[in-house]
Amino acid sequence: MKLTVVKVGGGIVESEASLQALLDKFARIEGLKVLVHGGGRSATKIAEQLGIAQTMIGGRRITDAETLKVVTMVYAGLVNKNIVAQLQARGVNALGLTGADMNVIQSHRRAPKNTKMEDGSMQLIDYGFVGDVDQVNADLLADLIAKGVVPVISPIGHDSKGSLLNTNADTIASEVAKALSRSFEVTLMFCFEKKGVLMNPDDDDSVIPSITSSDFPRLVEEGVVSGGMLPKLENSFSAIEHGVSEVVITHADNIDVAEAGTHLTK
Amino acid sequence: MKLTVVKVGGGIVESEASLQALLDKFARIEGLKVLVHGGGRSATKIAEQLGIAQTMIGGRRITDAETLKVVTMVYAGLVNKNIVAQLQARGVNALGLTGADMNVIQSHRRAPKNTKMEDGSMQLIDYGFVGDVDQVNADLLADLIAKGVVPVISPIGHDSKGSLLNTNADTIASEVAKALSRSFEVTLMFCFEKKGVLMNPDDDDSVIPSITSSDFPRLVEEGVVSGGMLPKLENSFSAIEHGVSEVVITHADNIDVAEAGTHLTK
Repeated sequence: MKLTVVKVGGGIVESEASLQALLDKFARIEGLKVLVHGGGRSATKIAEQLGIAQTMIGGRRITDAETLKVVTMVYAGLVNKNIVAQLQARGVNALGLTGADMNVIQSHRRAPKNTKMEDGSMQLIDYGFVGDVDQVNADLLADLIAKGVVPVISPIGHDSKGSLLNTNADTIASEVAKALSRSFEVTLMFCFEKKGVLMNPDDDDSVIPSITSSDFPRLVEEGVVSGGMLPKLENSFSAIEHGVSEVVITHADNIDVAEAGTHLTK
Repeated sequence: MKLTVVKVGGGIVESEASLQALLDKFARIEGLKVLVHGGGRSATKIAEQLGIAQTMIGGRRITDAETLKVVTMVYAGLVNKNIVAQLQARGVNALGLTGADMNVIQSHRRAPKNTKMEDGSMQLIDYGFVGDVDQVNADLLADLIAKGVVPVISPIGHDSKGSLLNTNADTIASEVAKALSRSFEVTLMFCFEKKGVLMNPDDDDSVIPSITSSDFPRLVEEGVVSGGMLPKLENSFSAIEHGVSEVVITHADNIDVAEAGTHLTK
């Protein structure tokens, strides 16, 4: 059976108008599906209101104990449960989850890491309660999906020792997609601010419709794929190597249009 | 198969020491189980920190839109997911839920209600986003429980129209217990600040070990059961009439001691 895993970033789920539009489209995706969401902007806002200073290094949040409480409240509570309630209103039988629920995502706390700072220097950074994924336990999840349940997963893992861990949502989407590819034919869809991978970065309509793993090195060499797109595609092809049938990089407006975006395949 | 549904109030889950003790004991309860929790004190604290004024009338929280966000963050996020992670660390395969998840608890928003105020006057009070339960859909839940999953339910329902609803945790516990009694032999356990229903309110050890539905009217008449205990027991006997095998009113310290507390039966 076909299954679509959609990853959508915080920006879209945090504005009421774009969230409603997204959920309308998500509800229209045919067949089995999973939604993985972010929520970083709301977390930053609530942390500010609570007077908890936030430090970002290389786009990643330093997650001290107080910040972990905030992301747990915002990702797993506010954002996740609102999505669930609004999908239920659209007839989608959503189930909100973190990685701790049913032990779906086992992680470990990231060790302090040598990190390149903005001034170019290297520094040993302790990211705090941030998780790297060890294993996805997808058996119970696959059962529920086959019964029509639509998991909505927030980017929170756990360490099996009682601590929740702030975890990258792209990573959770890829790891869940890989694990579910043992039970389903999985399409992993990343929502993006552009219509897909562009041939010409100045032309929003120059979407490359498909890239195979053998095209990929050439596109990197030619400089078509660079910057932040490079790790995104590397992760995507790694997901494909580990069982995912197809990765689609597309605009959030187009998640219900099967042919839109850039399609990555073996 | 036997199933124990434990309801624990906010006071216990909100202090780290009493939460750890409770979860140790909960993990020791044999057989299938469900935990229903509150979280009111944390919600009040976070609301204060966010500058959202809280109004309580007759012990119930007036839930405006901003307060609904707070209780969603605190009950379904902070409190629920910490319990889930800490049960996982104890080898209990917990799954945190609100009533919106898998449409487990369908509710409707409570209409404004004539309410007796502290000064004795009656006033029409709009409780805001507060839910009354219509129906518990326990089929998927019963499947999961039979597979060893332990649902941890936060007191948030939904109206099937996209809105979450703040819902009384005792009510959720009773309604879930009733619905699950179609699949299991259910004991519903209410954690209480005393050791049970006391024969003599000044003697903490005068616990009445068992009350049957035929004893109940006599105990009310004799004044043994009065005040806040009266609606608690009425609800308990109503749960028993609707399929629950036994209701136990016991101290949180004793949830793993089968014979402790007051046992209510038909």
